Amino acid sequence: MADKTIPYKIYLEESELPKQWYNVRADMKNKPAPLLDPKTGKPITAEALSEVFCEELVKQELDDTTPYFDIPQPILDFYKMYRPAPLVRAYCLEEKLQTPAKIYYKFEGNNTSGSHKLNSAIAQAYYAKEQGLKGVTTETGAGQWGTALSMACAYLGLDCQVYMVKCSYEQKPFRREVMRTYGASVTPSPSELTAIGRQILKEHPGTTGSLGCAISEAVEAATTQEGYRYVLGSVLTQVLLHQTVIGLETKTAMDKYGIKPDIIIGCAGGGSNLGGLISPFMGEKLRGEADYRFIAVEPASCPSLTRGKYVYDYCDTGRVCPLAKMYTLGSGFIPSSTHSGGLRYHGMSSVLSQLYDDGLMEARSVEQTSVFAAAQEFARVEGILPAPESSHAIRVAIDEALKCKETGEEKTILFGLTGTGYFDMFAYQKFNDGLMGDYIPTDEEIARGLANLPQV
Amino acid sequence: MADKTIPYKIYLEESELPKQWYNVRADMKNKPAPLLDPKTGKPITAEALSEVFCEELVKQELDDTTPYFDIPQPILDFYKMYRPAPLVRAYCLEEKLQTPAKIYYKFEGNNTSGSHKLNSAIAQAYYAKEQGLKGVTTETGAGQWGTALSMACAYLGLDCQVYMVKCSYEQKPFRREVMRTYGASVTPSPSELTAIGRQILKEHPGTTGSLGCAISEAVEAATTQEGYRYVLGSVLTQVLLHQTVIGLETKTAMDKYGIKPDIIIGCAGGGSNLGGLISPFMGEKLRGEADYRFIAVEPASCPSLTRGKYVYDYCDTGRVCPLAKMYTLGSGFIPSSTHSGGLRYHGMSSVLSQLYDDGLMEARSVEQTSVFAAAQEFARVEGILPAPESSHAIRVAIDEALKCKETGEEKTILFGLTGTGYFDMFAYQKFNDGLMGDYIPTDEEIARGLANLPQV
Repeated sequence: MADKTIPYKIYLEESELPKQWYNVRADMKNKPAPLLDPKTGKPITAEALSEVFCEELVKQELDDTTPYFDIPQPILDFYKMYRPAPLVRAYCLEEKLQTPAKIYYKFEGNNTSGSHKLNSAIAQAYYAKEQGLKGVTTETGAGQWGTALSMACAYLGLDCQVYMVKCSYEQKPFRREVMRTYGASVTPSPSELTAIGRQILKEHPGTTGSLGCAISEAVEAATTQEGYRYVLGSVLTQVLLHQTVIGLETKTAMDKYGIKPDIIIGCAGGGSNLGGLISPFMGEKLRGEADYRFIAVEPASCPSLTRGKYVYDYCDTGRVCPLAKMYTLGSGFIPSSTHSGGLRYHGMSSVLSQLYDDGLMEARSVEQTSVFAAAQEFARVEGILPAPESSHAIRVAIDEALKCKETGEEKTILFGLTGTGYFDMFAYQKFNDGLMGDYIPTDEEIARGLANLPQV
Repeated sequence: MADKTIPYKIYLEESELPKQWYNVRADMKNKPAPLLDPKTGKPITAEALSEVFCEELVKQELDDTTPYFDIPQPILDFYKMYRPAPLVRAYCLEEKLQTPAKIYYKFEGNNTSGSHKLNSAIAQAYYAKEQGLKGVTTETGAGQWGTALSMACAYLGLDCQVYMVKCSYEQKPFRREVMRTYGASVTPSPSELTAIGRQILKEHPGTTGSLGCAISEAVEAATTQEGYRYVLGSVLTQVLLHQTVIGLETKTAMDKYGIKPDIIIGCAGGGSNLGGLISPFMGEKLRGEADYRFIAVEPASCPSLTRGKYVYDYCDTGRVCPLAKMYTLGSGFIPSSTHSGGLRYHGMSSVLSQLYDDGLMEARSVEQTSVFAAAQEFARVEGILPAPESSHAIRVAIDEALKCKETGEEKTILFGLTGTGYFDMFAYQKFNDGLMGDYIPTDEEIARGLANLPQV
């Protein structure tokens, strides 16, 4: 039984909140490979990127040497609306598991977007506003990013156009209404609104969509409308940079109480939440100041790190975005319609891919039903109904805590609880009714996805 | 422009959390009238009440002299899972309104039940467990109370049977799944499961139900099953007592920063949230130590304080519960099917009724569309998508802040933001589509509801 000298929840004071984002690339010996221009096959220029992205964000994307970026004051002010996020000691879960492990989670779900996505949404919307744009376009999977962006745009008075992966659009009609309440327009993807959408619908009639495909549509919409740019909720290095606010807060809170995690766990779709959580800790590891185990958890249905290849690939199904070197299942890989829409991406952040390839991070894939079982167990003792995506991290955190129970080790486990599952009740209903299955791609399906990689 | 020396959000330390609930009746000169036994017409005995309620809760219900009750340690531990609730300075709303008023809100929505209801749910479930019961039955309107109770029961390992007002059951299917995820059984009310349910269905075929009717069913279910008791999410004085944790935390946070509210506003259905928020402040007013304005906000569709009578009435449609002296529209009043299910109750807490009758508190009724307009405005600048119920308080807080803008007064306004609207997206959709109407009972409808009051 834990002695509970550490509070259940650690909230930093406003004065302790991070005032800079941390750029982990500055401390990496092996830098992530540069993005390539799909037209030339050469490292992309800031100029070319600026046709799609805001200028300030392009700078952040390409800069792999500056260790810290100041967070502009208006973004700091917005952060204060929903941050600090609590670092929670999972006393009840520990007791339920009867484990000697100490479990902590950083909870990012205490805001209306329901996840950590708001951290980057406000940053990207702010730079778009500063550049004098009319609006932004984007894609959303589970709907968390779209909701976050619509909130940020409503706050700043920017137009917001969201392409929502069709299976999520159908599974989560309420997400659409949250976005509409914040003034955004929402289109199910693939759609008839874009050339690439029409093409995908022709080639794959009845497809439930994918993040890669929705990205292509949003990019097309941004580049064909005057005064618009595209913004992205994950994968990109700029997003990972903004999300370091998660890890920086976590580290400050842990340092304040003299806590040192042994294992740090996060779910990984595009990688921004995991990257944001681990960056400051990884920085210490890279600089030789401390050692940690990092575990990326991905769905068995979309296993880019554990079954993909580390190569240059397109970031989107439509092949209009720059090429990134990353662990990928191939941009043509369309994952099965599972209930973790936010993790259905064929690739992985190039920063995390490089760290994984360098052996600095581990990866594990888990199956859907075991993820929901972990979610339910967690909800009943810790009170929070987690997002299916976040529950991937819960699954592995519980597994690691149970290992400690066997070995008697008092390890300190930290995981990222990225969001809540309030808009995922169809999925929970399926689980409650015992109707949920597991979808694991065959070797043939994986090979098929990897058959059409670009020649670089 | 505010100088922002007060943090955006004030979180108390764990050590500063209240360890006792405050019983405002102890400081009232005019005590609330006693509950009457429906069989005898005389003040009800503890023994008779104990057939329906847990023993410890009966003691709390009947005690109008003890000023403080210790909160048992297991409840304090549960509170630490989701409390302290933040006291938020609404800087962004103030700026949007360009008001010199200072606006604060106590936000109770940062937990999976989505509202303050969890504060009393865990207390009531705990006492049921202590009494060695198998389980509890209850009703739920908007679903927040049922969700809260199912969370508390899952945590303690108690069976939980919920009768959910039919219109909410239909409007909020996801609420049902949250309750099921926490292991509760959920039945739409009126149902065929109880004698009273069958009778109501016969008399009012096609009714969308009401809280009063669901209460009757849950009470019947509790008293006809061995090892079960009934628990209630509002109206009762015991609930108001548990909810004082809201006001006590708020007062501690305000005192810490030297803030003194001029006006305190809360929505009022059965009255527990409002009562909980204002109790410690009302105590000061009753003792002559300070003065505050209190405003209860109710829906124009169900205006018990502003259009009801202060008389003895049944607490439930089926007339099986004790009689309470309260402001009421008559237990036969079935409010129109609006989108604030949590406020659709014909009566009002007997404590609040007495305070209102003594002129210690004001009341105001507001219309649904103006409530949703306030909700949307609030969501866009403060980030939180509020529950329709809570938005009644937002409406009046904004109105008061706009009055200050006219007069130039720098009043300090405090309101209770009781919950989030994540399960109310059908209602928001209706508002977004411009299809929402206002339903105000005619004088004739009010008179009809009051025609069948009990003869006491």
